Amino acid sequence: MPPLTQTTAIPAFRKTGETFTSGAKTLPQRYLVSPEIFAKEQAVIFSTQWVCVGHLSQIAKAGDYFTSEVAGESLIIVRDQKATIRGFYNVCRHRGTRLCEDKGGQFRAIQCPYHAWTYGLDGRLLGAPHMDKVQGFDKAEHSLHAIELALWEGFIFVNLANEPTPLEEVFAPLTGKFTHWNLPKLRSAKRIEYDVRANWKLIFENYSECYHCPGVHPALSKLTPYDSAENDLCEGPFLGGFMPITKGHSLTMTGNACALPVGDIKGEDHARVFYYSIFPNMLLSMHPDYVMVHQVWPKSPERTLILCDWLFHPEAFDRPDFHPNDAIEFWDMTNRQDWHVCELSQQGIASRAYRPGPYSPRESIPAAWDREYLRYVG
Amino acid sequence: MPPLTQTTAIPAFRKTGETFTSGAKTLPQRYLVSPEIFAKEQAVIFSTQWVCVGHLSQIAKAGDYFTSEVAGESLIIVRDQKATIRGFYNVCRHRGTRLCEDKGGQFRAIQCPYHAWTYGLDGRLLGAPHMDKVQGFDKAEHSLHAIELALWEGFIFVNLANEPTPLEEVFAPLTGKFTHWNLPKLRSAKRIEYDVRANWKLIFENYSECYHCPGVHPALSKLTPYDSAENDLCEGPFLGGFMPITKGHSLTMTGNACALPVGDIKGEDHARVFYYSIFPNMLLSMHPDYVMVHQVWPKSPERTLILCDWLFHPEAFDRPDFHPNDAIEFWDMTNRQDWHVCELSQQGIASRAYRPGPYSPRESIPAAWDREYLRYVG
Amino acid sequence: MPPLTQTTAIPAFRKTGETFTSGAKTLPQRYLVSPEIFAKEQAVIFSTQWVCVGHLSQIAKAGDYFTSEVAGESLIIVRDQKATIRGFYNVCRHRGTRLCEDKGGQFRAIQCPYHAWTYGLDGRLLGAPHMDKVQGFDKAEHSLHAIELALWEGFIFVNLANEPTPLEEVFAPLTGKFTHWNLPKLRSAKRIEYDVRANWKLIFENYSECYHCPGVHPALSKLTPYDSAENDLCEGPFLGGFMPITKGHSLTMTGNACALPVGDIKGEDHARVFYYSIFPNMLLSMHPDYVMVHQVWPKSPERTLILCDWLFHPEAFDRPDFHPNDAIEFWDMTNRQDWHVCELSQQGIASRAYRPGPYSPRESIPAAWDREYLRYVG
Repeated sequence: MPPLTQTTAIPAFRKTGETFTSGAKTLPQRYLVSPEIFAKEQAVIFSTQWVCVGHLSQIAKAGDYFTSEVAGESLIIVRDQKATIRGFYNVCRHRGTRLCEDKGGQFRAIQCPYHAWTYGLDGRLLGAPHMDKVQGFDKAEHSLHAIELALWEGFIFVNLANEPTPLEEVFAPLTGKFTHWNLPKLRSAKRIEYDVRANWKLIFENYSECYHCPGVHPALSKLTPYDSAENDLCEGPFLGGFMPITKGHSLTMTGNACALPVGDIKGEDHARVFYYSIFPNMLLSMHPDYVMVHQVWPKSPERTLILCDWLFHPEAFDRPDFHPNDAIEFWDMTNRQDWHVCELSQQGIASRAYRPGPYSPRESIPAAWDREYLRYVG
Repeated sequence: MPPLTQTTAIPAFRKTGETFTSGAKTLPQRYLVSPEIFAKEQAVIFSTQWVCVGHLSQIAKAGDYFTSEVAGESLIIVRDQKATIRGFYNVCRHRGTRLCEDKGGQFRAIQCPYHAWTYGLDGRLLGAPHMDKVQGFDKAEHSLHAIELALWEGFIFVNLANEPTPLEEVFAPLTGKFTHWNLPKLRSAKRIEYDVRANWKLIFENYSECYHCPGVHPALSKLTPYDSAENDLCEGPFLGGFMPITKGHSLTMTGNACALPVGDIKGEDHARVFYYSIFPNMLLSMHPDYVMVHQVWPKSPERTLILCDWLFHPEAFDRPDFHPNDAIEFWDMTNRQDWHVCELSQQGIASRAYRPGPYSPRESIPAAWDREYLRYVG
Repeated sequence: MPPLTQTTAIPAFRKTGETFTSGAKTLPQRYLVSPEIFAKEQAVIFSTQWVCVGHLSQIAKAGDYFTSEVAGESLIIVRDQKATIRGFYNVCRHRGTRLCEDKGGQFRAIQCPYHAWTYGLDGRLLGAPHMDKVQGFDKAEHSLHAIELALWEGFIFVNLANEPTPLEEVFAPLTGKFTHWNLPKLRSAKRIEYDVRANWKLIFENYSECYHCPGVHPALSKLTPYDSAENDLCEGPFLGGFMPITKGHSLTMTGNACALPVGDIKGEDHARVFYYSIFPNMLLSMHPDYVMVHQVWPKSPERTLILCDWLFHPEAFDRPDFHPNDAIEFWDMTNRQDWHVCELSQQGIASRAYRPGPYSPRESIPAAWDREYLRYVG
C-alpha cells in the first residue's frame, strides 16, 4: 500500500525556558479565519502529529471498539483478541463503504454492511463472497488500512503519518511526570460533546490563562485565585502547571471532594489543580479527586468539536461518597462560559478592524502556545 | 435566440457485448467527490443528453402541466390545446421571473405573477401591458424559451442541447423491446421523493447488482434469489435483464400480486422482474403487476434527489383486487435499504484511504455502467 | 491606526434629467448571482458610501446604543454623555473579542466580556488590568476603532471609508426637500426584519415601479392607482416622487388615517404618498400619517436582510386615535407580496435561459437606479 500521507515533518528547532516577553501579541487574523491555513493545519499538524483519540478504559475487553474522526477521517479503534489496541481507516477494501456507523460497541469481526466482506479484529480480510472467481485476487492484499497507534499514560494516540516519530520520543519530556496520578487505571463517568463556533486555537489560548477568570468564571474564581498559577512547562508542545485550590475544597458545585483521590496524591497536591495542554489536541486537568480531559477537534476555521471526559478512580464508582455530577456540573458550567467568550473572540477577530493585540503578563502561556503552533504553520 | 447550450457531443465509439472482465475496479475517488467533475457531468451529460422527466399520464388533459428541475433549470412541461407536449424554461422574458412555483396543475395560459405578461400554452407572448409604447418591441421575439422534448414508451424526455441527436436514434436499440408492457397507458398511483446523501453514480451501481441483496434486502432475497440475474443488455447506455420471482409470488409485502397485469405478459414472464437502467437518469423496474420508475437527479457530488413512481394498469385502479400499497411499501422499504448503503459508500469513498476496489463477477453490470459513464467524463 | 478601507471613490460623472429611454433592459445575470460582484459591491459601495443604520429616536438618552451590521462588520452606535452620536467597530483592542452581543440597550461604559477591558462611551480605553506592567503600553493607543458618522433628517448614517466625502455634500440635492415632514422628531412604533431570498438590487427595482401593483398588490391598487406616479427625482442616487391616495383615505387596512399627521403636511400632500430611494440602502415612504423606512442589507448575491420601521409623530402615541397596526399590517402584507415576487425573479434570473429583458415605460425609475448602480460596479 502506498503512503496515505507524507512522513512527519519534525520541526528542527525548539526554544526552551522562555517566559513572558513584553511585546507578544495575539495571532494575525488569517490564522483564525482562513480556509487555506485550516487545510494546512489539518495536513501538517493533525495528519502528521500524535493526537489523542481516547482512553484505554473505553475498550476494556477484546472486541470493544470506538470510532474517532481525525483530520476528516473516520477511524476504528479496537482491542483485538490478543488485547492489542489497533486502529484502522473505516473503509471497506471492496467498494469503499464505511464499515461502522456507531460511536462504539463490540465486534466479533468487522463486517461490511454492503456486500458482507468480513475482516478480523487485526484487519485481515477473512471472507469475500464470489471473489475466489476473480483471477489474481489475493485476500492478503485487501486487509483494512491500518494507522499508527501508541499509548501514553493510558491515553490512546494515533498518527496518520506513515512513518511518524515514535510517540515515546515526542513525549520524552513528560516521562514519569504524571505517574502518581494513576492515569492508565482511571475510568470515565461522563462524556460531553461541545460544538463551539470558534477556531480551535482560541480554545487553547483560553485554557492557558486565568486572566479572564474574574469576569467569566465567578464560581471558579472563588475556589482558585485567578492570579495564582505556577507554571512549570513554559515553552514547547507541553505547557502548564498548577493553581492552588482553597484549602479543604474541591472544584465542584458543592466545593467538596466528589470521589476517592485518583492516585497517590501527596502533601500540597491535595490542594492543587494541574492544567496542562498537550499539543495539538489534548487538555489535561488533574484534580485530586478527578481528571478532566478535553479532546479538541478543529472542524473548520470557525468551528471546533470538543469532547470532554471526566475520569475517576475505578474503585470510586461503587462507593457511597461518589458524586461525579458534582464535578461534571461544575466544569460543564465553566466550559460553557469559556466557549462563549471564545465564540465572541472569533466574531470580533473576523472584523477588518481587528489587529493583533498585546498579551498581558498573565498571558505568557497563550503566547508560548502560539509560538509552538507557528513552528508548524507560520 | 442564441444557443443556450452547445450541441450534443455524441461519443464516437461504443463497445458491445462485453461481459465481466477480471480486473475491473470501482471508480477513482475524484468522480464521486469533486465539484469540478460534478459540473462537467451537469454540462456534458445532463445538459446534452435525453433525460426522463415524467410520464404522459401526469398531464392527460389540455392545460395540464408539471415542473421539473434538470441541470439546475426549472422547466415547465405542458400539454397544449392541440394535445402537443411542450417544454419551456420557467423564466419570464420581461424581468426573468420564475413563472410557476407549483409542482403541477392546470394552466389556461401562462401568466407571470410579477407584471402579468401572458403566454399561450405554445409559449407565444400574448399580452404585455404598456409594451406597445416601446419602440421596436415585437411580441414574436419574446416567446418563452422552448426546450427539446420527445416521448419514448409514454415517458417524457427532454434535452437541453440546442440540436440534440434525435431520441429515436439514441433509443433505437430498445425499439419494440418493451411494447408488451403497455407502458404508455400506465398510470402512477404514488410518487415518493428521496433525498439521498450519496453521489448519483452510486445509485446506478447499487441498482445494477444483487451481490448486496442477502445482507441488505432480506425480504427481497426471499422472493428473488440474489444470484439469479440474467442480463440481456450488458454494455452501453441501456443495461439490465431479468430475475426470476418465486413461483406464485409477487414483489409485495404480502408476496401476492397487487393489481391486474400491466400488459400482455406471457409465459415465464409472469414470474420475472425486469430491471433496466436507461442512461443517464432512469431506472425501469417492470413487474408483472406494476412498473416502478426511478428518476435520478444529481444535486451535488454527495447528494441525489430520487423520484420514484409506481405505475399500474389504468383499469386496475377501480377493481377490488387493487392493493397498490402492497407494492409501494415493499419497494419503499427496499429503496431505503439501498440508499442507506449508498450513503455509507459515499462516506467511505471520501476517505484518503479509499482506493478503487475489485468488482466481483456479480458486478459486471456496475462495471459496464462505469465504462459508459466514463465515455462522457473520463 | 492605518486606514481600514480605502477612501471613497467618487464617481466623476453624473447624468441628470434623463427619463425613459426605449431600449433600456434589465441587468445582466452576473450582477444578480456572482459572488465576485457581490464582494465588489460590498467594497466599493457598502464600505465607502454613506449607509443608513437607524434613527435618532432609537438612542434618545446618553448611554443608549444599538448595534448594526454593515458590510459584514458589527458596529456599535451610541449616544455619549455629551449627547454626541458615535460609532465604533464592535471589537476589543486586546484579543479582538466582540464587545456587545445585544441589538441595543444602555451602556454606562463599554466593557469587554472576556478580560474586562473597559472603554468610555467616547471609545477611550479607561481600564485594562495588569497592562501597566507591559513596557511601552499606552492606553491612548488602544481606543476603540471609530467610524465616520453623520446625521440627515434624524437618520443616522455611517461610512466605513477613512476619509469619506462629507454627507452634506452627497445629500446636497435633498437639502430642505423633506423638512416639513418633521423626520428628526418622529419615533418608531415597530420594526420588522425580513430575510429575503433575492439580490438586494431586485428590492430597489421592485420599489421603484408600480407596474407590478395590479397583480401583486390588490389592496394597495384600490387606494392608489398603479399608473399615477409623478416622479421629481429621475436620475442619480436619489429617485422617486409621489402617488395620489384616493381622497379621504390612507394606506392602512381600514383605509382610514391611523395617527396625527407626521408634520406640516399641506394641501394636496394630504392625499399623496411620497416614495424615494436613497442610494444605496434606504427606502423612504412618507405618508401623511406615518413614515415607513426600509434599510436594505445585502447578505449574499441571493439573500437580503430588510429592516422596516414605521415612524409616527411623537405626540401621536398617547392619543386615542393612534392605530399604528392599521398601517403596519397594511405594509407588512404589501412588503411580503413584494419580497415574494423578488424571490421569484431571483430564481428565474439564475437560469441559463435568462437574458436582460426590456423595461416598459412604467419602469423608467428602475432603469435609472440600475444606471446609478453601474457607475460603481459596471
